[in-house]
Amino acid sequence: MTLQRDSETSLQSQIFDRVREMILNGSLRGGMALTPSRTLSKQLNVSRNTVTLAYDRLVAEGYVTSKGTAGLVVTSIPPDHFLAVANAAEASPVFPLDHNNPIADGTPMLCYAGIPGGETNGPAYDFWVGRSAADAFPLDTWRRLAMRRLAQSPRHLTDYCDPAGLHDLRNAIARHLARNRGMTVSADQIIVTSGSQDGISLVLNLLRPQVRRLCIETPGYNGAKMLFDRESLPLEAVAVDANGLTVADLPRGKGNLAFVTPSHQFPTGVMLSLSRRLELLKWATATESFVLEDDYDSDFRYEGAPLTPLAMLDRSRRVFYLGTFSKSIGAGVRIGFVVVPRAMVDDAREMKAAMSNGQSWLEQAILADFIDQGHFERHLRKLHKIYKARRNRLITALNDAFGPRPITGQDGGLHLVWRLPSGAPDARHIQIQARDLGVGVYAPSSGAAFDIDENAPDDRLIFGYSSLTEENIDKAVKLLRTLIGAQSGTVGEGARP
Amino acid sequence: MTLQRDSETSLQSQIFDRVREMILNGSLRGGMALTPSRTLSKQLNVSRNTVTLAYDRLVAEGYVTSKGTAGLVVTSIPPDHFLAVANAAEASPVFPLDHNNPIADGTPMLCYAGIPGGETNGPAYDFWVGRSAADAFPLDTWRRLAMRRLAQSPRHLTDYCDPAGLHDLRNAIARHLARNRGMTVSADQIIVTSGSQDGISLVLNLLRPQVRRLCIETPGYNGAKMLFDRESLPLEAVAVDANGLTVADLPRGKGNLAFVTPSHQFPTGVMLSLSRRLELLKWATATESFVLEDDYDSDFRYEGAPLTPLAMLDRSRRVFYLGTFSKSIGAGVRIGFVVVPRAMVDDAREMKAAMSNGQSWLEQAILADFIDQGHFERHLRKLHKIYKARRNRLITALNDAFGPRPITGQDGGLHLVWRLPSGAPDARHIQIQARDLGVGVYAPSSGAAFDIDENAPDDRLIFGYSSLTEENIDKAVKLLRTLIGAQSGTVGEGARP
Repeated sequence: MTLQRDSETSLQSQIFDRVREMILNGSLRGGMALTPSRTLSKQLNVSRNTVTLAYDRLVAEGYVTSKGTAGLVVTSIPPDHFLAVANAAEASPVFPLDHNNPIADGTPMLCYAGIPGGETNGPAYDFWVGRSAADAFPLDTWRRLAMRRLAQSPRHLTDYCDPAGLHDLRNAIARHLARNRGMTVSADQIIVTSGSQDGISLVLNLLRPQVRRLCIETPGYNGAKMLFDRESLPLEAVAVDANGLTVADLPRGKGNLAFVTPSHQFPTGVMLSLSRRLELLKWATATESFVLEDDYDSDFRYEGAPLTPLAMLDRSRRVFYLGTFSKSIGAGVRIGFVVVPRAMVDDAREMKAAMSNGQSWLEQAILADFIDQGHFERHLRKLHKIYKARRNRLITALNDAFGPRPITGQDGGLHLVWRLPSGAPDARHIQIQARDLGVGVYAPSSGAAFDIDENAPDDRLIFGYSSLTEENIDKAVKLLRTLIGAQSGTVGEGARP
Repeated sequence: MTLQRDSETSLQSQIFDRVREMILNGSLRGGMALTPSRTLSKQLNVSRNTVTLAYDRLVAEGYVTSKGTAGLVVTSIPPDHFLAVANAAEASPVFPLDHNNPIADGTPMLCYAGIPGGETNGPAYDFWVGRSAADAFPLDTWRRLAMRRLAQSPRHLTDYCDPAGLHDLRNAIARHLARNRGMTVSADQIIVTSGSQDGISLVLNLLRPQVRRLCIETPGYNGAKMLFDRESLPLEAVAVDANGLTVADLPRGKGNLAFVTPSHQFPTGVMLSLSRRLELLKWATATESFVLEDDYDSDFRYEGAPLTPLAMLDRSRRVFYLGTFSKSIGAGVRIGFVVVPRAMVDDAREMKAAMSNGQSWLEQAILADFIDQGHFERHLRKLHKIYKARRNRLITALNDAFGPRPITGQDGGLHLVWRLPSGAPDARHIQIQARDLGVGVYAPSSGAAFDIDENAPDDRLIFGYSSLTEENIDKAVKLLRTLIGAQSGTVGEGARP
């Protein structure tokens, strides 16, 4: 038996581990005596107390039995009980995590941005979708609110909160929805979640027993598809045109759950028309279906007024409304919410308790104060201005570099979709090549979106512009110009090289 | 049309809402003209601009179309599209949440304690299970660490983190497990969760495709049962005796998932013997099953050494290990973790991304520092001393008041189970009556536990002692003495009234 003096594991634990190992692999059999502690301590050059404590633990765990003056002997346990354990492969030691770049292979995981918070392995200019502006984050205010809340009773930190969310926050969200989205919902309809995915999970778990078919938009949001794909229910992908989801193509059978993004369809950015909205609600009623309305970036609308959410038109019967603070405050805060139809409020709260027993208190408390004290309204106005300017700069830069090309989704939100010049390589190739230049642009297929039609032309790039400065947007598009211009040979009229 | 001047909803929104309402319910039909804005502004005594903005929104949303000099006319949308909407019941206005006591009816929701953080409607002396000591929370240190982290780049708050958890925290947890539980696991096997329920959900979601049967202990933890009950898989409840789960009674068919609490069985508190542990692992191998080991309060062991976790004996093949900081730091922090078998690390990380895209950054960052800087070790030692003293005081107080009665689960953890004196009313009745005296004690059936055997005698109370001061423990037991002594008439020998 040899010991490692520089190990994180104590000498006592190492002795315990080695002896246990010998018992489990049969080197020491039932009835055999252990080397006396005095002898072993000399052999190993450790204090006798160290050995005694290791032996005590072997006794306590039942591997070894004390036989009085006969000393310690290995317990007789039916040997086949050890088999499973003895045949196990040796565990490798503790090792630090690899800092591998998660999107190095071009398939980023869901909303997991190329740059996990604070890491430095992402591209210099990253148009990953849905990232809020770090340079606009109200850090001083946030810190001040955190300090104030952390001066309160630690009971908030040690006790469970209501699984549906902090009382103050649910009221603040209800008021925010009334002011900004014209929605009349009561606070008890609001379930606070850990962002959108948790909200989709909640609705799925809630409706699973009564739903027979799942429907998604195509192209659509991969986060929803990842969850829907895991269900044993049939999945129907319904096409999107210039007016949003083609509602007429929804299945006519009963008991569907349709995931939709009416405000700013993901990824195309088109808005579901009023006529389609009404048609969708009529469908839900006629087919006894439910609609999950993801209003993920509705806080930002640059042209025209936003449409009334489906949830408001429906009056809390068949529509679940999904909101998030990941775009308007930050994804690292991990707070979103679901507005639940009135009849399902109690079930939803119980389901959230079963799923995760609610969210962490501090973030909820800070956010509630942030909304109530008017900081959120101011922050939204500030972000609106910043995002709009970045959007404008991106459109101008793209037009300057490549001439006018079809763009969709520019009326609101945090991203737009740009059609590549004819003759350019397909989007997946450009994504890989651009990365070598330090530019992160994404084919929809790897930018958190999917297209059920595998033969759809791969001729579009998604630009999430919200987290890049105007200066960096210019630089990034210039780099793209060298890449795409050089390859396609044609850069359209109006291009200024 | 009348407007509410004192409403949270703006006058402009009210006008928009009322006109939309009239269109949706058919009072205004397609082709009909709207009252000119000048006229309406006089009628309602509001500025003309207010009306114009409301009308603009009606146009933007498509309810109304501008016909030049003819003014605004209601859009002709197929009337049946409106039917679903028009028939909806009137939504009730925003109202604040009810502060109803969630356990007033004696059926508390899962781990949702009688007293949600900071609320004041719980009993004065509450023995609810699994609550950490608020008076021992290291608030100054926590605040200092929070401030330090909030002085860093806001990128952590605005970006997504690794869905499997913050790098620093996963390493810190791996080191903690090596030191305190003798476990050799790599940081990438650790998935940070929002507490235990989220961990159970993760494992269920991960194994659902390959598992054919679910097994739980009876009596057992209701949190697991709540989730298992929702699955379409058959559920087998296996009895617990003085050595823990009766492993021999586990189903012999292939592909099971068994939820077990080996360190301190919930609720009985018994420890699974070494022999049973090995038998359980052998069963898992033979039947190609998985074991979910919930080590929920193993940080606190007062008598004897803890046994090696199943996950360590199994060497990361068929055992998922579930840990939580809810008992050792606080439930309001909402951080737990799952140690995942090596072969399932990537799947687990992807599943966690789909479920909730990871946990909030700040709590993870504070906790990582708290562990790394040695505060957690000190805090555990402090809590260990406090909890042990509270446990001792409770046992002494119960013995003084009622004479020696059978107690289980007192060797570790945050709760013990006490058998009622013969002649006393059943536990559910005492729970209700005690509450009137300001004492929260719980029959297992309402204390987050269940017993599949509905005829099992209801003669035990669960005492979660960790959050009560010794003085309050004395007071509470004296109150119980008046209640139970008075009713049962017999209080055993050794009782000192």
